[in-house]
Amino acid sequence: MASTKDSNRASGLSETGDPSKGMISLASVRDSLIRQEDTIVFSLIERARFPYNAPVYDHSFLGSGQSLVELFVRESEALHAKAGRYQNPEEVPFFPDDLPLPLPLPCDNPQATAPVSVIEAIWNMYFNDLLPLITVKGDDGNYALTAAADLACLQALSRRIHYGKFVAEVKFRDAPQDYSPAIRNKDGDALMKLLTFKSVEEMVKRRVEKKAMVFGQDVTLQDKGDKVEFTDGEIKVDPSVVSHLYDEWVMPMTKHVQVEYLLRRLD
Amino acid sequence: MASTKDSNRASGLSETGDPSKGMISLASVRDSLIRQEDTIVFSLIERARFPYNAPVYDHSFLGSGQSLVELFVRESEALHAKAGRYQNPEEVPFFPDDLPLPLPLPCDNPQATAPVSVIEAIWNMYFNDLLPLITVKGDDGNYALTAAADLACLQALSRRIHYGKFVAEVKFRDAPQDYSPAIRNKDGDALMKLLTFKSVEEMVKRRVEKKAMVFGQDVTLQDKGDKVEFTDGEIKVDPSVVSHLYDEWVMPMTKHVQVEYLLRRLD
Repeated sequence: MASTKDSNRASGLSETGDPSKGMISLASVRDSLIRQEDTIVFSLIERARFPYNAPVYDHSFLGSGQSLVELFVRESEALHAKAGRYQNPEEVPFFPDDLPLPLPLPCDNPQATAPVSVIEAIWNMYFNDLLPLITVKGDDGNYALTAAADLACLQALSRRIHYGKFVAEVKFRDAPQDYSPAIRNKDGDALMKLLTFKSVEEMVKRRVEKKAMVFGQDVTLQDKGDKVEFTDGEIKVDPSVVSHLYDEWVMPMTKHVQVEYLLRRLD
Repeated sequence: MASTKDSNRASGLSETGDPSKGMISLASVRDSLIRQEDTIVFSLIERARFPYNAPVYDHSFLGSGQSLVELFVRESEALHAKAGRYQNPEEVPFFPDDLPLPLPLPCDNPQATAPVSVIEAIWNMYFNDLLPLITVKGDDGNYALTAAADLACLQALSRRIHYGKFVAEVKFRDAPQDYSPAIRNKDGDALMKLLTFKSVEEMVKRRVEKKAMVFGQDVTLQDKGDKVEFTDGEIKVDPSVVSHLYDEWVMPMTKHVQVEYLLRRLD
């Protein structure tokens, strides 16, 4: 059996799951955040292939009181846990209770934990706010594909938001003198101010909007000699919705994770 | 409990799982094929985020004789079956034996079946030929994420290739007089010739190559007043590999599915 000791080599993150103990660089964090935008946009485009499909979220649909999407996410997370997904401190399950142990030799990483409030906030935001914005009304019966697409969106968003821990660690190391007073005073509002860079946030919003345009476009061949024409593209995911997602939910929630992390950084 | 009678509304496919019985149009088939290219390219780009990660495919890794990816695909397919995925005739499992029954009220669709030889050919092509072309050598320990990304690629490729049944039905309806003699003579070679349009295949190859370029690009903001710069992008998936994938495997396998379907079309 292969060693899983190197399970965080990809990200250069701590092997202990604790951002304060690992090698971590501003460049690696920035690259990861930018790359995660692609994953989020891809997953939203894929979800938007299907209409809203209300039965997926209906707690009376299966007769067990559990919605299809909840069953799908719970059982998927159990499988992913068996395969060792949550040994990577970037990955946070929505239903952490009673997850099976990883089948491959577990490494020493404790499973990453996250404040329940953040997990719940992501879950509620996705189903109550975002999903109606990225889907058309309707029901095409593709419930399993829908739930699988929801899972991909939820995982991508959760990873991005919980990545705030690593973002905060990098910022703290870069300027501990700026953050330490507010941390010692347990002043969350002051930390939030220190963590807010309006111009960067504006740039991120514009970049994800552009990604939704680029990745959602209908790619056609426009050679002169080529007479084949394709249907005019519908918008796959409204780019302004993706910008709104980051503005209203992803960046505020990430900053909340950062504040919570920093408040405990000097304990 | 909601009815699942409309489970194929999205694709306009037959409710019986038999392409010869449903409403199906050239336009809907063409749109689906083009849209599936996006899914395939997205899934390849996502898989290529991780290096090869050999333990995922090592039959001795888990100690059970089953590789991690096989366990992951089998258990995922069982969950997807419970959620009703294989009630959609476009969806074909890799491990059809012993799948659980769908939890929501099953509709009348018989589960789609596919020749075992095609399923095996897709599986072997993906792991033996394609995967080494889209990944870099190495091991970053992200085995669960790797297996999940493999699952997404396998499902997207399998759906595309098995979609050949619907492509064949549309072509047959368009010109039954062209296909019927070869079908009656059980002449697979003649059918293969009738189904081969070199110029269309060249166009598809160029289009998927362009999609890999467009969807794999690093999207940056290049405003003059904006001093932030991003790292130069590495290629996420080599566009020529995606073109090769279609040329060497996807289109020939799809035509094989078409020939097999047509040989039974007049039974």
